[in-house]
This record gives sequence, structure tokens and C-alpha cells, in this order.
Amino acid sequence: MIKFATRTINQFMQQQKDLFAHYKQPSIKEDSYVTGLKLANSLKGSELVPFIPINGRQVNFYYCGPTVYSNSHLGHARTYLGIDVIRRTLRDYFNYDLLSVMNITDIDDKIINGAKQAKQEFLEFTKVWEKDFFSAMEALNIELPDVITRVSDYVPEIVTFIEKIIANGYAYDSNGSVYFDVQKYLADGHTYPKMRPEMNADLLQEGEGESQANKQSEKRSPNDFALWKASKPEEPKWPSPWGEGRPGWHIECSVMASAILGNPIDLHAGGIDLIFPHHDNSLAQAEACFNCDQWINYFIHLGHLNIADRKMSKSLKNFLTIDEVLKRYTARQIRLNFAIHQYDAVMNYSEEQVEQAISKDKAYQEFFQNTKIYLRESQVTGPQKWTQNDFLISNSLRSTKQVIHAALLKNFDFPTVIDAIDKLINQVNVQIANKTVRAPLIQSVVQYVHFILGLIGLNYQTQNNSSSDIKFIMAEVCSIRDQVKLAARKGEFEAISNIVTQKQFQYEKNLSNGIVDCINQFQQQVLAASQEKNKQQLFQLCDKLRDEQLFELGIKIEDKDKEQASIWKQYDPKELKLEREQQQKLIQQKEQIKKKEEEKKKQEELEKLEKAKIHPKDMFLSQLDKYSEFDEKGIPVKDKEGNELSKKQKKVVQELWEKQNKIHNQYLESLKKQQQQQQQQQ
Amino acid sequence: MIKFATRTINQFMQQQKDLFAHYKQPSIKEDSYVTGLKLANSLKGSELVPFIPINGRQVNFYYCGPTVYSNSHLGHARTYLGIDVIRRTLRDYFNYDLLSVMNITDIDDKIINGAKQAKQEFLEFTKVWEKDFFSAMEALNIELPDVITRVSDYVPEIVTFIEKIIANGYAYDSNGSVYFDVQKYLADGHTYPKMRPEMNADLLQEGEGESQANKQSEKRSPNDFALWKASKPEEPKWPSPWGEGRPGWHIECSVMASAILGNPIDLHAGGIDLIFPHHDNSLAQAEACFNCDQWINYFIHLGHLNIADRKMSKSLKNFLTIDEVLKRYTARQIRLNFAIHQYDAVMNYSEEQVEQAISKDKAYQEFFQNTKIYLRESQVTGPQKWTQNDFLISNSLRSTKQVIHAALLKNFDFPTVIDAIDKLINQVNVQIANKTVRAPLIQSVVQYVHFILGLIGLNYQTQNNSSSDIKFIMAEVCSIRDQVKLAARKGEFEAISNIVTQKQFQYEKNLSNGIVDCINQFQQQVLAASQEKNKQQLFQLCDKLRDEQLFELGIKIEDKDKEQASIWKQYDPKELKLEREQQQKLIQQKEQIKKKEEEKKKQEELEKLEKAKIHPKDMFLSQLDKYSEFDEKGIPVKDKEGNELSKKQKKVVQELWEKQNKIHNQYLESLKKQQQQQQQQQ
Repeated sequence: MIKFATRTINQFMQQQKDLFAHYKQPSIKEDSYVTGLKLANSLKGSELVPFIPINGRQVNFYYCGPTVYSNSHLGHARTYLGIDVIRRTLRDYFNYDLLSVMNITDIDDKIINGAKQAKQEFLEFTKVWEKDFFSAMEALNIELPDVITRVSDYVPEIVTFIEKIIANGYAYDSNGSVYFDVQKYLADGHTYPKMRPEMNADLLQEGEGESQANKQSEKRSPNDFALWKASKPEEPKWPSPWGEGRPGWHIECSVMASAILGNPIDLHAGGIDLIFPHHDNSLAQAEACFNCDQWINYFIHLGHLNIADRKMSKSLKNFLTIDEVLKRYTARQIRLNFAIHQYDAVMNYSEEQVEQAISKDKAYQEFFQNTKIYLRESQVTGPQKWTQNDFLISNSLRSTKQVIHAALLKNFDFPTVIDAIDKLINQVNVQIANKTVRAPLIQSVVQYVHFILGLIGLNYQTQNNSSSDIKFIMAEVCSIRDQVKLAARKGEFEAISNIVTQKQFQYEKNLSNGIVDCINQFQQQVLAASQEKNKQQLFQLCDKLRDEQLFELGIKIEDKDKEQASIWKQYDPKELKLEREQQQKLIQQKEQIKKKEEEKKKQEELEKLEKAKIHPKDMFLSQLDKYSEFDEKGIPVKDKEGNELSKKQKKVVQELWEKQNKIHNQYLESLKKQQQQQQQQQ
Repeated sequence: MIKFATRTINQFMQQQKDLFAHYKQPSIKEDSYVTGLKLANSLKGSELVPFIPINGRQVNFYYCGPTVYSNSHLGHARTYLGIDVIRRTLRDYFNYDLLSVMNITDIDDKIINGAKQAKQEFLEFTKVWEKDFFSAMEALNIELPDVITRVSDYVPEIVTFIEKIIANGYAYDSNGSVYFDVQKYLADGHTYPKMRPEMNADLLQEGEGESQANKQSEKRSPNDFALWKASKPEEPKWPSPWGEGRPGWHIECSVMASAILGNPIDLHAGGIDLIFPHHDNSLAQAEACFNCDQWINYFIHLGHLNIADRKMSKSLKNFLTIDEVLKRYTARQIRLNFAIHQYDAVMNYSEEQVEQAISKDKAYQEFFQNTKIYLRESQVTGPQKWTQNDFLISNSLRSTKQVIHAALLKNFDFPTVIDAIDKLINQVNVQIANKTVRAPLIQSVVQYVHFILGLIGLNYQTQNNSSSDIKFIMAEVCSIRDQVKLAARKGEFEAISNIVTQKQFQYEKNLSNGIVDCINQFQQQVLAASQEKNKQQLFQLCDKLRDEQLFELGIKIEDKDKEQASIWKQYDPKELKLEREQQQKLIQQKEQIKKKEEEKKKQEELEKLEKAKIHPKDMFLSQLDKYSEFDEKGIPVKDKEGNELSKKQKKVVQELWEKQNKIHNQYLESLKKQQQQQQQQQ
């Protein structure tokens, strides 16, 4: 038993290395797949350690899924988005062969209570919330694990597992329940708790994880925790050698992870709040069952999420469900917002802070749109000889790749990755705007940025795959609209009639009818307005086509300088609408701030004016709580106790008086001027 | 061409190791990126050598592009598809950072002649064929290199490069041309030719590469080759210190590769026909310019392509342009056809042999379609506990990954890769058909197969991304058609009227109008047929909707057993049409073969009958060129010289007689039977 009752933090820090001496770093064998990746391993006090899977490229990966009794919330989003990005990176960047298992906790106190309140059978109840969870995951573009294990499917395996722990001498049954024998386990040279070795005996009692205070009498030691719980009346129950009951909280992960992935397992992940007691107990159970030293080789933990600097909780009314957040932001914006924070650091969520993700998302979207137009306009048969600009971009691309490779190796440092991508994009944007770089190289940059953002689960390319028919019709729409605007500017109304009556668009197979409707309606209305020679209305119709009609179909028209043709870009209509809402909200917020500042300024000026009205002779007279005697100018000479003011005090009141005298005179001057002006006006 | 004038193959093989002693295998440094990849390096006699780039993950890659003077042909397809697959694999599988340069040879004898014939300025002429080349590459889904270098853009750099070789003492000018001094180069301890070290002096003269026989007098040694050629009248020409002229054939690659990638370069590739003299001379030039030992670390060569066992050539009329081939097969089928042959082996192309690729392509397409339907129908909230089948598929997936990883490491062994994918797909197909495996695992298999086929440039997923509106309307179309068929089978014609008048489909925003037209027309025609109670026509209409109307839109309906709902799959309409054409062609071919076989059989029977008509006594009588005397049965006893037949000869003719006697008697029997039958019938 390790106890820190009398030790200081400093001592603790010095000894920390010893505390994690139990950890055995997997060694590199002949067939090891070595990428150089390092992980912050909780089994080594979050130290970065080289990641070496047991069998070649194969990574057996288990992570703790949700307890399904309520809405999925932003805390879930952080954990599972973090794991999703790690999975994609291990697979798509480092080329590991992942087998991922996630459990669903569908037996639990909260579930039993919830089902009781909802008057549902407990597995009916959990199905509802499991579905809610998976829907939220899908909406966030989080990939499913390869294997989903539900506790309710594994009770017989849990019973067998517990029997083996008892047979190994590390658990005992008592009054129909089974407890883990912490003292016996430690006495035999095992380590517990591995990831929180600084825990003292008092804290260890939390190892139970659920309110079992009334069960203390059943235990050999207060630190022992339940593997199997005798069932109370009306609780769900399963048969066992110890009578009817249900599994304890921690045993499920030991059993289900082993059932699919065996022993030892390469990688285990979960939210940091689970590190103790849940994960430490899971480790102890599995190691007690298999009589092994190290069941898990790498244990990583996703960091805490605070909402506006406070812990998220229903009582604080800062509890945010994923559904709610998805109404305000796209999945991409949410994903980016989490990715710009290191996965294992504490993160604070607030509306202001999401703005950074929104603007990044917008920048990426525009980057892909602009490069797409650039590539569309560049002919491979055009000039191809490299200039300094091409070498510049090529070198930037390569150094970006180096920076990102190093960052990913360092415990998936995505904040650095995103920073590097942003810098590269900015450089490329300049070259594209100046048209000073070869298209094939831009194609390579686009391919790479797409690949890296894909690790974060961001995809900006699907929406870019406009079918050829939309390209054709949009080229015509832009051209007609440009011509109408130009003719309207010149007042050539008859020319407009010709422009809009030349072609009638018709519904065709595979043609986007929304656009057909738009352009036909536009042409009719323009015709009418041109016959009435209504210039203003013509411009309004052109704006309406851009800002309302096409906008709703996800198409943005960007007007250029007078002589240049307008360009079009296609987006997901829903995203485009949300983007506009977000922009309007931002404008409103800024206006409110501006309004408040103006009111404040007005108020201050009013106060200043009121102060200026006071004659300097009167300014101290009311301060009888401070002074008792004044000179002829009204300047204090004695304090309230009747003592002469000190030199220093006199200097202060003199200066105050001078200042007031000055602003009062200014006030009188301005009054005089006003009167003169009024007289002149009369 | 390898010639072994006085050497035997065995001697050559023994000495081969020494012949490539010049090769220096790049060593592993601290920052080396080591994947285990091995390449068949022509600099080491095609031995597999570990691939270690000079700088970490960075791979500088140069490959020889086309000489643009004629149509792109199937030989180009093989070379550039091979390089495309290698590039994708290096980048997407092994995560190397590639910078790829490809040249365009736009100065060349063939070009000068071609332009003269076409009466075009030579750069106008090359632009036409360059465009043809890039269009063919795009049609085959071959990625552009990062850098395109045209010789005509690099003449000043070429002049500077030649000046440096002269300054280093390895080239000399003569009569306005410049030649490489092979003897001086060898005398200074350099190696030439590095990749064809077995070359003798006679063969080395081919090193010129172009017909320069009349220039021999200008050279110090017959093996010297031109770096710069004094221009003939009316040829394109550039200024140089040696007078006006143009670059020799080989110098361009040395110069342009160095201009972008420097020295040394990691990887160089090209068709095997370029290995000597082009590549060997390129090496010598660059090493002479930089005074270095090894300009290129890895040189790989794409194998020869024969057409129906003969070298492809215009004179043999087996010259196939890419355009022609793309009319017969999709880009995917062509890509697959090359991928199932090892890139550096000789490959024979024939129509029969493409069938393998067609059937593989079909199998992949169906795999993605069927898994998509399987995933669409599987709910994540359904049963998830793994059974033996899941463990089986999971283990297969992992061992497939191992096999493929090993195959890719071994010089990009894609035949093995494809074989492994096929086996995995077959296993999964069985489990899907039996619905005995969990959907999340199938999702993983699909993701992996998609990734690996992506290395070959095959993408089966875009066409699978049906928009949600098509899902909705197709579900209705299938349901209506199923109901019509069922009611028609039962003869319930009034029910049919109700089914098809319930809903009229209308054009909507973003809705696929082709399908709307189909279903409305179908409903009208079905209504008419049901009023006429025409059962046969109803079935015909259902077939027509499936086989013609929806088929043309790229939608396939698959009918199931009577009680089961039909399912639909969406394809690229063009591909679907081509697939049907290919199938019909195959059926026609098979029918032709069958017909020929039947005719042959008929002919054989006729001949047999004619033979059977001959009486055994007469069979030898006409053979007076062999025999001169016969016994009473007509069996020969003496040969044409009048000598008695030997015992052995007698045995032979006796046996022939017996055989004829037997078939003649059978013939008489059958005649008798026929007569009896005729009598009975009368």
C-alpha cells in the first residue's frame, strides 16, 4: 500500500518515476512495426513512450463506451471525437491494422433507476438511449468501432471470469456478492492502483464506484470493490454460483475486452474521469484473472471538458446535448473545435471560443473552392516551367509535411498540425490569387491538405463534386446575369429583352430543376422590369437571384469587378444557410456590443456635463464627512476633526479645485456659445 | 538487347554479381524512414534492394514521359498506369513524401519529321500530341506528376550542363556538335553502361540512339554519343557556344531531373525499352557533370507489352491507341488488367485475357453494392455479439492485411495483392448471403478493400453515393412494381388500377427526373394493360421498366423470390451499358464457338457415314499406290513393289479391315431399321 498522508507534492514529484516502475515498455522485436509514434501513457504517469504493438502492425484497441441512460452530451462528443481522430490517424496515417472494440454499458444503477422512472423494461430503456448515442455519433461523422459489446450480452462470460479470479485467490464471495481482495492482491506482489499510485487508503474506498457504503460490513477490507452484486428486489438479475445478481461496474470492461482481444492488449482509451477507479480496477481484475503483469500496454485518456470555465452538469444549467449543439454548428465546425485542442488536455468550451473553429472551417472551404476554380481554369497544356514561386510552394509543402509528421508522432499533436496546415494554405492562397504557381503542384497541395483534414474527419470534397450538368447550366446562369447587369448599367433595356428571351431552360433528365426554376423565373421578371425600364428593379432581381434563390440551393455567386465575369461555387445548402445564420448572429452580437459602448459613452458624457455644472466654490462644501472649514474659494483648510490639512492634503484639494475650475469655465464658455448661436438663428 | 557472343548464360549469371559491383546501397541514417520496401533495382541487375530515401520520408522521383508525335497507345498505358500505381502506393500506403517530375520530349527526329509532314511549326505539332497524351491519361484516371518539364523550355539549362561536362573533360565539340567521350570517362574510373554492363563494343554504338552513322567521322570513338547536334537546314535550332543546334536525345533527362530534383535523386523510372542507351547515357551524363558516383539510387523499369504474343507495331497492324481501347473497356477494367500483371514483367495483351479483368471488376462492383445493401439493412441497435463467423472474418481480414503488406513490400507485387483481396471478398460474400456477420465488421472490410483498390486507382464508391431523394423514389418504384407483378400473377386487375393511380410523381427540386418520367409512364401503361386484363403485357411492362427504362438511367432492379421484395442498385449508366455490350459480345462469341463445334461434329458424322458405306472388300482396292495384290476378302497381301507384306503390316491391314467390316455392318443394320420403320409408317 502506498500512502501519501505526510508527503509533499514536491516529494511526490521526485518519486513519481519510481511510482510507475511497474510499467514494462514493450520491446522492439524483429517483426515489430516501428513508426516512431509516442503516446502519453497513463501507465507511465502520462510520460510519452514509444508505441510498439505486440504483433507487427496489428493494434488491439479497446475503448470505454457510454452508459446509456440519458442524452448524449458534449462530453461524449469530446471523448468519441478524440478517439475517432486517433483511430483514423493510426489507420490512415500510420497504416496500423486496428481492431477496435467499444462497449455499451447497459447494466448500471443509473439505468435501473431511469428505467424504473420511465416505467420501461431496462433493456427497452437502454435501447432508446443507445440509439440516441449512435445517432449522435453518426451526425458527428464518428466511425463505428469494429466490435460493439453490450454488457447484457456477456453476463455468463463475466461469471466465468469472476470464478477464475476467485480460483486465483484474489476475490471472495460474501453474502451473495463477490469482492476483489485488494490486500491479498498487493501481498502477492501485484501493483494497485497502477495509474493513480499516489492514492491513499481513504481515496481508495472510492474504488467501489457506486454507493455501497452499507455494504462495508460484507468486505474484508474497505478498499475491496464489488465484482458481483447480489440483486435487490425488482432489479434485473442473472443466475450465478453466488445466487442471483448482477455484475459490478468495473468487471465488464475486463471481460469484454479480453473476450474479443485476448491478453495482453495494445491500447486502451477512455475519458480521464474513468482513470480511477474504473480503469485501475479493470486492470487489476484482468491481471488477477490472467495472473499476468501487464494486461494493457498503453492506456490513453481523453481530457476534461469544461463549459464556460465550469464543469458541465445538469444542475449548473450548462449541460449541452449533442443534438442542441448540432443545431448551432455543423459537424465539421464541432470536429474542428475539438481538434484545435490537444486531446489529452483540459479544454474549455464557450460560444466565443467556437468562433475560431468557424473561421477555420470557412477558410478551408474557401481554399478548396478557390483551388478547384484555379484547377478548372488551368490547362495542363499551358506553361509548365517552374519559377521561384513553384519552388517556394514545393518547399513549403515539404516542410509542412515534416512538421506535421513530427507533430503526429508526438502523441497526436493536432493543434500543431492545424497550425501548419493554416500557414501552408495562406501561402498558397497568395500564389493562387496572383496566378503565379503551376496547377499540378496545387493539385498536390490540395491532395495533401484533403488527406490531413481527413484524419480529423473533415471532408470538403464531396460537396465540390458538382455533376457536369450543373457546371453547364451555372455557366449559362452566370453569363445571363452578368449581361443583364451590364446592360442595365448602360440603360440598354432592349438588349436585356434579347438576352433573357434567347433561351428557355427545360427540365431534363438528371438536371437540377431548382436551378431551372430559378433561371426561368429570373428571366421572366427581368423581361417585365426591362419593359418598364426599371433599372433599380433589375439590380434588385440580380441581387435576389444571388442572395436568395440560388443561395437556397447551395450556390453562391461571387461578383467581380465590372468587366470580369462572376464566378459560382457550390455548397451544401444546409451548411450555407447555417453559415449565414452564424454570420448574422455575429453581426448582431457586434452591433449589441457597439450599442452598449455607445450608451456607456453617452452616459459618461452626461455625467461629465453634470460634474462641469458644479461651481468650484461649491464642490467641497457638501463633503462635511471629510472637511469642516473652507477658504473664500471654497477650498478645504481643516479636516472633519478640525485639524489643519497637511501640506500634501492641501496640494491635492488645490489641484482638484483647479481642475473643476477649468471644466466649469469650459462649460460656461460652451453655454455662452450656444446662446450666441441661438440668437443668430432667431 | 542483350547479346552473349562468346559467353554462355551460366557464365554471365556467375559474373553478374561483379558486373553490378558499382552500385552503392544507400545506408540507413538516424532520420531514415524505413518501411521495409524492396525494389527491383536495375542498377543492381534487377535484384531486390531495400529502399532508403536520402532525406527521411522525401522521395525525389523522376520518370520518362512521352515523345509527343503520335497517338498515345497501349504501351503508354502500361508504363504510365504502372507508374501511377507505384506513386499512389508510395504515397497512400507507405506514406512517403513524393515529388514527381515527368518530362515531355518535344524536340526529337520523329517530331521534326512529323511536323514537316503535317506542315506545322514543331511546337504547334507537339502541343496537339501532348494534349492527346494528357487526355488519355485523364481518361485512364492517371494522376498528373507534380512537375511537367518540356525539353523546349530547358535548352539554355542543357547548354550550361553540356559546358560543365566539357569543362570536366568528358565531352568535346566537333564540327558544331558535342559528343560524350566514353573512353576518357572509363579511363577516369567511371562505370558505363551501368545497367547493361554486359554490353560489348559493337552494341555500345547503339548508344547514339538515333541514326548518326554518317557522323562517325566526327567522333573520337564509335561509342561516343551526341550531347548537342549541329542543326540541319530547316530544323528547329537554338544558339550555343558550338553554333546553332539542338540537344541530343539523352541529355534532356539528365538536365531536367537535376534542375528540379538536384543530385543525387532517389528514384527514376521508365519503360524497359529505354534502359539502354537512354537511361545509361542519362546516368553517365549526370555523373560526368556532377563528378559523382551515383546520380540515381534506384532505377526501376516497367516491363514490355506484347499484343497477342507479338511486339506492338503499326506494321503488324496490332497497334492499339488508348482511345480505341477505351471504347471497348472502362478505365477500371483497363487498370485492373494491367494490375494483375507484375509491373516489371513482360505482359501479353489479348482480348481473351482482358476477360479476367472484366470479371474481377464485376465482382468488385457487386461486392460494394451487396455490402452497401447489407449495411443499409443492418441496424446498429440490432444484435452485436460476435459469433464464430465474426471471428473468422476478422481473422481473414487481418491475415489478408499481412499478406498484402508483405506483397507490397516485395517490389509492389500487386498480382498477389489482388489475389488476396479476391479471397477475402469471396469469404465475405458467403457470410453476407447468409447474414451471419455483424455490420460494423463488414464496414471495416469494405473500408480496407476500398483503400487497397484505391492504390490501383479503382474507385467503386462514388457511384454508390446515391442522394437521399433517389433512395426514396426508388423504394417506391420497387414497391409499386412488386405489387403490380404480384397482382398480375393472381389476375387481380382492379387492384392494379388502385396501385398505379394512388400516386402521381412530380418533378421536384433535386429529384432525378429520369426516374419520375419512368415511373409515371410505367403507371399509365400498366393502367391501360390492366383495363384490358392483359396479363402478358403487364409482365412485359415490368420487364421493360427493369431492362430498358431504369437500366438506361444506371439503375438495376434485381427480382427475388416471389414473396421477397426486389432490390435496386445504382451504377454509372455508361458503365452499365458497356457491361451489357460486353456480356452480349461474350454470349455471341460463345454461340459462335458452339455453332462451329456443332458444324464440325455434323461434318465428322457425315464423313463417318460416307466411310461406313464402303464395303470392307473394296476399301484397299483403290490404294494401288500402296498395294498390288489382295486376297478374296480384299485384304492386301503384297505391296506395290510386289513383295509379300510383313507380319506386322499384315496385322495392321487385317485390323483395319475388321474395323471397316464392323462399321459397314452397323451401317447395313441401320439401313435395315430405317426401311422397317418406313414400312411400319406406310
